[in-house]
Formats: sequence, structure tokens, C-alpha cells
Amino acid sequence: MKLATIRVAGRTRAVRVDADAAVELGTADLVELLRTPDWRDAAAAADGPAHPLDGLDYAPLVTMPEKIICVGQNYRNHIKEMGRELPAYPTLFAKYGRSLIGAYDDVVLPAVSEAMDWEAELALVIGTEVRNADEDEARAAIAGYTVLNDVTARDWQYRTLQWLQGKTFEHTTPIGPWLVTPDEVPATSGEMSCEVDGEVMQSTDLADILFTPVELVSYISTIITLAPGDVIATGTPGGVGHARKPPRYLADGTVVTTRIEGLGECRNVCRLEKA
Amino acid sequence: MKLATIRVAGRTRAVRVDADAAVELGTADLVELLRTPDWRDAAAAADGPAHPLDGLDYAPLVTMPEKIICVGQNYRNHIKEMGRELPAYPTLFAKYGRSLIGAYDDVVLPAVSEAMDWEAELALVIGTEVRNADEDEARAAIAGYTVLNDVTARDWQYRTLQWLQGKTFEHTTPIGPWLVTPDEVPATSGEMSCEVDGEVMQSTDLADILFTPVELVSYISTIITLAPGDVIATGTPGGVGHARKPPRYLADGTVVTTRIEGLGECRNVCRLEKA
Repeated sequence: MKLATIRVAGRTRAVRVDADAAVELGTADLVELLRTPDWRDAAAAADGPAHPLDGLDYAPLVTMPEKIICVGQNYRNHIKEMGRELPAYPTLFAKYGRSLIGAYDDVVLPAVSEAMDWEAELALVIGTEVRNADEDEARAAIAGYTVLNDVTARDWQYRTLQWLQGKTFEHTTPIGPWLVTPDEVPATSGEMSCEVDGEVMQSTDLADILFTPVELVSYISTIITLAPGDVIATGTPGGVGHARKPPRYLADGTVVTTRIEGLGECRNVCRLEKA
Repeated sequence: MKLATIRVAGRTRAVRVDADAAVELGTADLVELLRTPDWRDAAAAADGPAHPLDGLDYAPLVTMPEKIICVGQNYRNHIKEMGRELPAYPTLFAKYGRSLIGAYDDVVLPAVSEAMDWEAELALVIGTEVRNADEDEARAAIAGYTVLNDVTARDWQYRTLQWLQGKTFEHTTPIGPWLVTPDEVPATSGEMSCEVDGEVMQSTDLADILFTPVELVSYISTIITLAPGDVIATGTPGGVGHARKPPRYLADGTVVTTRIEGLGECRNVCRLEKA
């Protein structure tokens, strides 16, 4: 099952995306849907107003989730190519909801940054409240998977030792277009890539991930309750612009395509913020 | 004017705390109040049901704000005593809403941490949506000030380079009891202290702060829109338990009192989480 949040007449609606149409589910967005007990059955059975797939206007997959938790240094090949040891614990940092944009929305390049970079990532969305989850509970708590680009202001990220300020500029983080349920795509293997103006910059297999989605849900739930709609962005592989020689960054008009096999793609034009 | 969020019959209510009683404001909590245009006038004029001050049950001052932004390394004396240069930019990191507790609630010491530490902090709450705020706009966007203790799991904080996982354990962060409006307490000077079982561990004057509340609001609003109810915790001075020789941490039954002149105090008993 594929679920999404779309814009209709200035408001958002949660939809089930079938092969031939998008069917409204009766909630304003996916977070509201996921907070409904039995959301899986309700979404599968919904028979609301239908929209043709052509020209759907995708909102951020989840609009203003309670939490967005990001993971750093989580691809083995990237860690090894940097000459580092595999870490014992996942590196976690945050992002705020207003950074999210839809799968085809423009990425806003802040006027105050000169080093905006891409980071293709597999993201998961929580569908059941969990705390101190073992692996089975963690697996059952995952509503599904989607595509995210953790677009980062490198100059702000490295102003201090804590990355947050480079990670959460407004309207910079594409997420979507769909949530694909794990029965359809388990997201344990398959190609993830990032293209910048048609040139492949990142390409890896999801199997190379160090801390798996299930392990991350279990680990984070030891710290705090994970709630329906929460997003975990599971980290990016090698190939980011900042590590290139010379470095390469996003510019006004650049097109970034973030793709995961079986999950779909975000395609975003970068636009410089008007000062 | 002093505002708060209290628990009444299993629900929360926003109140104005007068000298003789707490008067209900008609919203479920302070965040909902601050989202109301003209909340200052509405709060000043409110004449709802009144509660005696004795025995008020304070909820977290803001329950589930959109954002909690924390600041590190922001007291000059502490930075200098560590032998560091004064930084050019504030260090920012996040905390999630479920970490917050009321001013007199128990701090839950996680079973998985052996190094829970205190961090007395001045916090501000946003009252007006702002983006790219200059100093005047930033000043006007501050609804008021309160007391916060950024209780931290040092062992988890330092598992990786990013501090988030040590900063956001569930039910660890006292905030309150009141929001005091800036006309009443400008919070530019006055003593802030943290006592552990009656022993003063931290004591500093707010005037020693490096990046002021107004500067922080302006800086953060360059990155992302600040919204009513958002909390900025402005950093802690020297005297934390982790830096003591030998280190000292919070234990089951420890009483932590976090106090700021003119703003009041949080007083919290630490209780070990049941495994």
C-alpha cells in the first residue's frame, strides 16, 4: 500500500495511491491518519473522493510530525572510505518540521549559506507508539518507508560542533512522495541514488546500512517514546558535494533527484531565497 | 504577568497566576494561548474559574511545543575556566517535547544511564511568529522567561559527537513553574542557581551570558521560523556534576532545585525508572 499527503484546494488530505487514482482517506494528513487505531485497515478500505494521479500536488509526506530524528555515519562503505572505525552507537541529531517540503517542491537555498549540499536517505515513519521496543516491537512500529534528502548547509553545520543549525533551514528537506508499507518494500536492499542535474553523485545499496531501521527504532525508543508520524532519516552514503575536490554545492536552478528502488523519487529544483 | 499550565481533573488548563489565585484563561495550555492573536490582552483580562495557589499541580509550562532549541557553551566564566576561546556562533542542539516535566514533577532517571547530571538554565518562550528577526523584532517575539533544568545523561551524550541522545530522555527536563513576561522580569541580570540536596552546585549571574536571549531569537530565526510556544533554553554555567572531581550524578531520591531570581524555582525529586 502507498500512502501520501496531497494538497487540494489550499488544504492537505491524506490519500491512498492506487495504480489508477489517489483516494482520500478522510484525514487532513498522514500524521493524523497514523494516529488512528487500525489505520492500516481503514486506509485499505477507504473509498473517498478520488483524484487522477497526473498532476497530484504532493505536500510533505508528513506535515509537522512530533519528531524528526536523523542518523549520521550509517553506511559502511562511507565510514571505511573516511578511514574511520565502525561506531558502536548510532549518531543522532534533529531536524524541525518546518524544514520539510513535498517531493516536487522547490528546495529553498538560504541567502545566508554558500554551501548547500545533498544527502540522499531512506526514511521511515512510525505507525504505532513504542517505548523500549525489542526488535519485533520495533519492526511492527514501522508504518513504512519513503525517500528523504537531508539537504544541509555545510557552512552552518560546521560553525560549531553540533550540526543542528546546518540541518534545519526552512523548506530544505524533500520527503516523499509516498509512504510504502513494509509488506510491499522491506527496504533492506535496493539502490539509493542522488543525481544533481542528471549526474549521479551518490549511489549505494541499502544493504550497506550499519544500523538498520529496526535497530534504530529499538535504540531510539530506549530514550523516548516514538509516536505515530515520527520520522527517522537513516543516514546518507558517500558522494556528498562537500567531500568532493573541489567541493560542489547546490545552486539556483539545480535539479536534485533522490531515488530509492521500489520507493520512488523526489525531484526538486533549488531556488535561491529572495533576500 | 505570570502565566502557567496546570493540571485540573486529568486535563491541562492555561492560567494567569495572580497574587491570590490562578485564573483560567480558556485554553488547554500555554502553547494554545500563545497562538491566539492578542494573547497578552486576553490573558490580562481573563476572568475564568479561579484556583487557590496552594496545591496547584503545575504541568510542563508548555506541553509539546513545536520546537525546543537548546544552547551550549553560553556562559563566559564557564568557557574561560575551561580554557576555551569565546565562540563566534552559538552552539545549538535539540530536545523533544516528551522530555519536559512540570516544575515539581519527578525527574525520571533512566535505568540505562549511570551519569544523569544537572544544568540550570534560563529559558524563553516565543509569543509571536518571527523569521529573520532584527533585534527589535526578536525582543518583541519573546513572550517571557522561565526556569529549566536541561538534565543530561552524560554517558549517552558522549556516546557520539552529537549530543541529542543524552539530552532528550523522556520525563527528564523540568520547566516552569511560570512564564514571567519581560515587562516584569527582563532577565538580563539576577542570580541563577542549582542546588542538589541543598548544596549549591551552580551559581551565576544572568549578566554573564554570552549570546543574549534577544540575540539567540534573532540568530535562530535566520534558520527557521520561530513559532508561539517554542522554547529556547539559553545554556548553563559551570558547576555541573560531570566536571567535578570525582564526578557527581543524580541518584534515586536526590532533590534538585533550580532557581532564578525573579522567576521562581523548579524543585524535583529524582526517581529511578522501574526496569
